Amino acid sequence: MARYDIALIGFGGVNRALAELIAARGDGLEAELGFALRVVAITDLRAGSLVRTDGDGIALAPLLAVAPDGLDFSGMPGGSPEPRNEWVIREVPADIVAEATFTNPTDGEPALSHVRWAIEAGKHVCTTNKGPVALHGPALKELARQAGVSFEFEGTVMSGTPVLRTARRMFGGLAVNGFEGIMNGTSNYVLGRLESGLSFADAVAEAQTLGYAEADPTADVEGYDVQLKVMILANEVLGAELTRADVPCTGISALTAEDVRRAASEGLRWKLVGSAERHADGTVVARVAPVALPAEHPLAGVSGPTNALAFHTDLLGTVTVGGPGAGRTETAYALLSDVIGIHHRAVSGTGILQEARRG
Amino acid sequence: MARYDIALIGFGGVNRALAELIAARGDGLEAELGFALRVVAITDLRAGSLVRTDGDGIALAPLLAVAPDGLDFSGMPGGSPEPRNEWVIREVPADIVAEATFTNPTDGEPALSHVRWAIEAGKHVCTTNKGPVALHGPALKELARQAGVSFEFEGTVMSGTPVLRTARRMFGGLAVNGFEGIMNGTSNYVLGRLESGLSFADAVAEAQTLGYAEADPTADVEGYDVQLKVMILANEVLGAELTRADVPCTGISALTAEDVRRAASEGLRWKLVGSAERHADGTVVARVAPVALPAEHPLAGVSGPTNALAFHTDLLGTVTVGGPGAGRTETAYALLSDVIGIHHRAVSGTGILQEARRG
Repeated sequence: MARYDIALIGFGGVNRALAELIAARGDGLEAELGFALRVVAITDLRAGSLVRTDGDGIALAPLLAVAPDGLDFSGMPGGSPEPRNEWVIREVPADIVAEATFTNPTDGEPALSHVRWAIEAGKHVCTTNKGPVALHGPALKELARQAGVSFEFEGTVMSGTPVLRTARRMFGGLAVNGFEGIMNGTSNYVLGRLESGLSFADAVAEAQTLGYAEADPTADVEGYDVQLKVMILANEVLGAELTRADVPCTGISALTAEDVRRAASEGLRWKLVGSAERHADGTVVARVAPVALPAEHPLAGVSGPTNALAFHTDLLGTVTVGGPGAGRTETAYALLSDVIGIHHRAVSGTGILQEARRG
Repeated sequence: MARYDIALIGFGGVNRALAELIAARGDGLEAELGFALRVVAITDLRAGSLVRTDGDGIALAPLLAVAPDGLDFSGMPGGSPEPRNEWVIREVPADIVAEATFTNPTDGEPALSHVRWAIEAGKHVCTTNKGPVALHGPALKELARQAGVSFEFEGTVMSGTPVLRTARRMFGGLAVNGFEGIMNGTSNYVLGRLESGLSFADAVAEAQTLGYAEADPTADVEGYDVQLKVMILANEVLGAELTRADVPCTGISALTAEDVRRAASEGLRWKLVGSAERHADGTVVARVAPVALPAEHPLAGVSGPTNALAFHTDLLGTVTVGGPGAGRTETAYALLSDVIGIHHRAVSGTGILQEARRG
């Protein structure tokens, strides 16, 4: 039985939910997936760091019994009041680093350094953090390739809904020429409430009450969150190397309830769409903008906090994948699916495609 | 470079489209996928059989230049006026048998025998034929397992849209507890036209004119086509062993335009839904029936000939995959994706999951 030792960097909602999954399902996962998971290190800005590489690693149940705000590793064996991220990532023997700190859309730090340190230390990395992937994805992939480790980031787009992995594994032999998606549940929820007659301010306030929107909703409603996801997808799926300047971004704050209702009366639905298209000359053109979609468009029926991504392909036309766009368990599942992907690569040598039987 | 020799059983729309893909894209596929494809045998009820196992195998371009109705293998080198299916499948050296004859919903023949012969002869099989998979899927899978060959059938549900493979490969570590889908484009198109005010008879006639419906639309509008797909999915995804008697089936012919329009005025959309659910006691309950879906249901917005399948999971909630439900190239792509799946299994030994690094 293979076993992977994991270091959790950041112990907020997502990595905590991953720890819950491992604690609750570890044995079932072993039986189903053929590998065991052992958490050997946890770091967190507030709680400090905790390292335990012997026996069963860190006992998760006692940690999960403590409310997140009250967690303090400093008094525990192997604990420290300092996160000591660099030391943990570089020096603690682990196979996989699961990076789930906050997204920094400006320079990707500190997650960018976390990912780099892990790769430099010869460790596989999975992250749900859009910053390093959107801003430095191609460079980090190349670094990982040279180091012979995996760099996985399914959770950066639509949480655990398998969109990056669908693009990578389900479309062999055909060409994906573009995509368009609804990739922000907050703005989609707000647009739906505008259709129901609420004002923009009331709709945002309601989304905040329901936990769909953060205290500062700017990144969601102005499209900046989707902009990062478009960069990640365009670079990964279309082989582009887009920067933020390459993806013009318009949010939904300029739309009025009246705009949205008038469109609805004409059978159109305003959606915040992130899209990219590969042109005949190879250039990739991307943008984020509100679009009034006709009812028969595959994204027009995507309601509430649900997300969906439509891939435009040559042989299959449009293939759409819809599912949750956020949520701590849903995003933690993305990390688990990354670990499964790392396992498959390890098992099959170079991963998906290589020469076979007849050499 | 690996190379797979393929025998095409049935040379109607689907396998002809597969031959077109191989002829047009063979070199590109080699470069992308790491294996070559060579067609060494073709059989067809009308054209006879053609076998060529030396050199580059069968030269596809000249065959594809002949209109389907005029194709006759009997005068060609290696040709015969008889299909000789059993001899070709059993005796001609090939790695993969691509079965694409007509679906027989009663006993699955002759495709059932084609699949059995191939497995008995130690050949991998891929098929787009719902009959043998719906009626004898679990038994055939076990037969293939014992013989150490692959049995793939992505094209039996939603043509090349990757739904079976999504269920198999994208949901590791979580539980799929049920599904519901729109899996017949003809009936979905007809329902959309009823919403627009057409009568049932006129809507069916229009679908026939557009090529969405066959001369005898019974299997589509009475739900029998969806019934087979529900059996395939329930058996594959939920581990059931359903027979046709286990899947009560009601079509859309009893719906009137008035029913559909009245529902639409209330924000509901009638859809022909195939579904199955695993209950707490392990039993799987399935059915095919028209359902009036609320607008926010993930299938409510699926329009025209598009199909979609919603998987209900424990960790991700509902994940929906939408795409083409039919089409010769789209279905031929399913066969190509099956060949890619066979290659992956061959490369990685037992396929997806096996013990790894630390043994």
